[in-house]
Amino acid sequence: MADLEILQLLLHGNQLKRTARTGWVQRGVANAEDVAAHSYGVTFGVLVLAQVIPTKLDMQKALVMAILHDLPEGVTTDIPTPAWHYLPPGIKTDVERGAMDSILGDVPFAPELMAIWEELHQGQTPEALLVHDADKLDMYLQALMYEQQTGNHQLVEFWRNPHHFSFPEVQTIFDRLLSLRNEEYAKG
Amino acid sequence: MADLEILQLLLHGNQLKRTARTGWVQRGVANAEDVAAHSYGVTFGVLVLAQVIPTKLDMQKALVMAILHDLPEGVTTDIPTPAWHYLPPGIKTDVERGAMDSILGDVPFAPELMAIWEELHQGQTPEALLVHDADKLDMYLQALMYEQQTGNHQLVEFWRNPHHFSFPEVQTIFDRLLSLRNEEYAKG
Amino acid sequence: MADLEILQLLLHGNQLKRTARTGWVQRGVANAEDVAAHSYGVTFGVLVLAQVIPTKLDMQKALVMAILHDLPEGVTTDIPTPAWHYLPPGIKTDVERGAMDSILGDVPFAPELMAIWEELHQGQTPEALLVHDADKLDMYLQALMYEQQTGNHQLVEFWRNPHHFSFPEVQTIFDRLLSLRNEEYAKG
Amino acid sequence: MADLEILQLLLHGNQLKRTARTGWVQRGVANAEDVAAHSYGVTFGVLVLAQVIPTKLDMQKALVMAILHDLPEGVTTDIPTPAWHYLPPGIKTDVERGAMDSILGDVPFAPELMAIWEELHQGQTPEALLVHDADKLDMYLQALMYEQQTGNHQLVEFWRNPHHFSFPEVQTIFDRLLSLRNEEYAKG
Amino acid sequence: MADLEILQLLLHGNQLKRTARTGWVQRGVANAEDVAAHSYGVTFGVLVLAQVIPTKLDMQKALVMAILHDLPEGVTTDIPTPAWHYLPPGIKTDVERGAMDSILGDVPFAPELMAIWEELHQGQTPEALLVHDADKLDMYLQALMYEQQTGNHQLVEFWRNPHHFSFPEVQTIFDRLLSLRNEEYAKG
Amino acid sequence: MADLEILQLLLHGNQLKRTARTGWVQRGVANAEDVAAHSYGVTFGVLVLAQVIPTKLDMQKALVMAILHDLPEGVTTDIPTPAWHYLPPGIKTDVERGAMDSILGDVPFAPELMAIWEELHQGQTPEALLVHDADKLDMYLQALMYEQQTGNHQLVEFWRNPHHFSFPEVQTIFDRLLSLRNEEYAKG
Repeated sequence: MADLEILQLLLHGNQLKRTARTGWVQRGVANAEDVAAHSYGVTFGVLVLAQVIPTKLDMQKALVMAILHDLPEGVTTDIPTPAWHYLPPGIKTDVERGAMDSILGDVPFAPELMAIWEELHQGQTPEALLVHDADKLDMYLQALMYEQQTGNHQLVEFWRNPHHFSFPEVQTIFDRLLSLRNEEYAKG
Repeated sequence: MADLEILQLLLHGNQLKRTARTGWVQRGVANAEDVAAHSYGVTFGVLVLAQVIPTKLDMQKALVMAILHDLPEGVTTDIPTPAWHYLPPGIKTDVERGAMDSILGDVPFAPELMAIWEELHQGQTPEALLVHDADKLDMYLQALMYEQQTGNHQLVEFWRNPHHFSFPEVQTIFDRLLSLRNEEYAKG
Repeated sequence: MADLEILQLLLHGNQLKRTARTGWVQRGVANAEDVAAHSYGVTFGVLVLAQVIPTKLDMQKALVMAILHDLPEGVTTDIPTPAWHYLPPGIKTDVERGAMDSILGDVPFAPELMAIWEELHQGQTPEALLVHDADKLDMYLQALMYEQQTGNHQLVEFWRNPHHFSFPEVQTIFDRLLSLRNEEYAKG
Repeated sequence: MADLEILQLLLHGNQLKRTARTGWVQRGVANAEDVAAHSYGVTFGVLVLAQVIPTKLDMQKALVMAILHDLPEGVTTDIPTPAWHYLPPGIKTDVERGAMDSILGDVPFAPELMAIWEELHQGQTPEALLVHDADKLDMYLQALMYEQQTGNHQLVEFWRNPHHFSFPEVQTIFDRLLSLRNEEYAKG
Repeated sequence: MADLEILQLLLHGNQLKRTARTGWVQRGVANAEDVAAHSYGVTFGVLVLAQVIPTKLDMQKALVMAILHDLPEGVTTDIPTPAWHYLPPGIKTDVERGAMDSILGDVPFAPELMAIWEELHQGQTPEALLVHDADKLDMYLQALMYEQQTGNHQLVEFWRNPHHFSFPEVQTIFDRLLSLRNEEYAKG
Repeated sequence: MADLEILQLLLHGNQLKRTARTGWVQRGVANAEDVAAHSYGVTFGVLVLAQVIPTKLDMQKALVMAILHDLPEGVTTDIPTPAWHYLPPGIKTDVERGAMDSILGDVPFAPELMAIWEELHQGQTPEALLVHDADKLDMYLQALMYEQQTGNHQLVEFWRNPHHFSFPEVQTIFDRLLSLRNEEYAKG
């Protein structure tokens, strides 16, 4: 067994604990979550949401997708959307693929993990769509927590053009979240 | 669909982002990881370690165990080992089970998740043993990161009576980690 | 003189500087106060409140009670109320007594301090009642500070079923605090 | 009862929770203790040290001195020693007296507290000397904690010309602390 | 070349990174800016504002003034306004001059920098007036950021008796900032 | 005067206070400096270093270069070197230029600032070379501070292949810094 390679791969996962979620930092959230905590939220979300959608899916694959979905950010950091505007269109996936390649290195199971990651990025299968929904839902849950717990008024922009979720059941949960938020803010 | 119950369950997962890993806080680690980030480390570890052990196991179940393993701490917080000394022996699992019950609430899939959680706590199946190994390994990886990055000398105690891992392959990876650490500290 | 024992006791007091007030952390307060700072607030409160109540009391004893009241949390951490729901009723004091015993160790004056601590926990004497009032008042002062300074909306729950204070004079001060708070929030 | 004056006095005590200990901040200690936590350490130290010195003293007065000793810093902040070099000699006590006056305001018991504070500043009585010793000892305990837990090499300067304590018993405890520290650093 | 003196001067500039802006800390702003970041804001402000005022000025001198304007605080810390009330009137500039002298030490260009600093403190030349305006404007920009991003209600006091700016063009920019703020708060 | 455009430009400068220096964050430095504080360090460094090099240069231009040198990072964040490896070679300057364009917007003096920024990026003139030297020197000063104050062992890599400075006088100052550091670490 290539134990040093395995150890280095584990350290790449560990690096997400030292990788900030840039959107919160740029808006002045103190002690903002890191990418590891967010990735936990997405993985937990996939586990829960998979129970409420009628679509039959490969749960193991969906969980692996969630675990891997931001792994490249340990190398690249969470580059914000505006920065990509100054880069060639479509290059984001190439950058992440390069980082992913170097993270997986020579571990023998790299091809299987890479294939799952590619499937996530093509965004066609139910598993990929669910992970994407869970990713967005975790962002909204967190935005609401920060609104309630830090009084940050700039997060209002997250709710202005809300995401459309692929699964109607996830959309229903989001709609409930949104109405809870709006009640809260109507109260003042 | 009981969307409010689902939302509340998701918020319980989110709560791990505001739950400190007590062992680090008590030893003065600034900006110590939260339980969500640790749970990500364990889940990622299970994914990786499952590839290197020869035992055939149910990966999906192992991942779910990892995701759930510290979920009760969102309610109870991460009560440190010394505190349990003043409580009746064996009560820790009861407390966590109670918290787990109230977290899962009335969601229809509560029994399945509870069963997986119970299997983890009985610690007999390969999946349970692997999650336990991954839990400990994440702690050691993190201890090493804090030693290297914060100069905390009190973490030396983590290495004095190191854990014995169930899977020899995980033990080998830990041994490699330990020898890297010791080389580092021999250098001064 | 058993100087090592004394030193270890001093370090137990020092440990409160690394012990978080869990209620704030769970509600996402960034840089929340530690138990040492809170204990200062309670001790200062006892000094001040003792001047405004007509009851004659043993000030020295009341101050010592305030100093000791959360000392066990250096060992146990500040375990939140919901966690105790899953433990046998009444066990909280036993746990704290056990921690207190191990903290005081073999110092020759352990019995005197333990007796004061027990009197506090029985909650019958004026000194014990005043420390309890000061403990709660410090919590409300801090809640108001966090509401004003962090915009945390979740702290509203602290004010919903406010504590009834033992001393009418402390109740009057709290009522004034509450009305200041409500004016502030009526303004918007 | 002048409840608003009392409330304002309590808020001045609370302000120490938002007052940094400047010496640590200037040396780059992350999440350094605040003055409230330090004041708790000093007050706890007085309680403990009073048990080990043979001098008979007024414990209540000593505790009140400890509680009050840094109260002016809520207004002035913890102005570091080098800054005072550019001010007229002896002015530090005047500044703190002025702040103390404005903190105590018109509460009826202001004269008694002020008298105790003045006695502390004259530094002649056993109570004043013990509080001064406890103040320094808390600083050394904290310096050692930061050395062990943050790897800060600049704190070595605290130990170079160590304080001479007024009470031989406190000196003995400090000497023990110093020898524990030096053993630790001899180990490397 | 006296490279050690130069290095020490550079380290004095570096010290501003470990010097808190006291006004924010006292009002409970988590992770408040340091004096280095503020000084950047003032220097950038001078660069920008110099373009919009019709007065011809020596840009290089104005930038140097901005760079130096809070340099003494690395030694003295940012002593808050109330503390100066207990000191002889007019002593603030003497204290800062003393600190400045010791910071510049024996570097051969100390007299030139000192002369620019003195001109700033006399506050008569257009360069000095612009730096003063930029200093205040940076404070208001930051207050607004903290109001929007932390929900701190205590910062309202900054806006109650707003500063009158020396340059009408800067006043216009401030007025625009104020009206943006007030719109925001009218919305609720 | 286009006061809203000016205000927006000032807010772009302010954004550097919420932009992390990624290299420190990735290596686990708690409360790492932000880009505004670093930019202050570079600007102060240019002011000081310009006095010690014999080359005659346009100080005003050099200071403006320093002020502007990381301004685009308010939009793009501080993307770490490894991320650029997965992007087309040479694209970094294009991305920063795009960000710079959008930051400057329509302010009438945009062309002058842009020209200075372009000159910096071409790196040919003495002013550009000095800013580059000051940028690196600030990084080394900060690395040393973090080594001394946080015990972070991973920063050793910064010193392994040290930068070659353009100006021999700056090189001499760096060499002095390096030898101070090495003495410190030889001591243990």
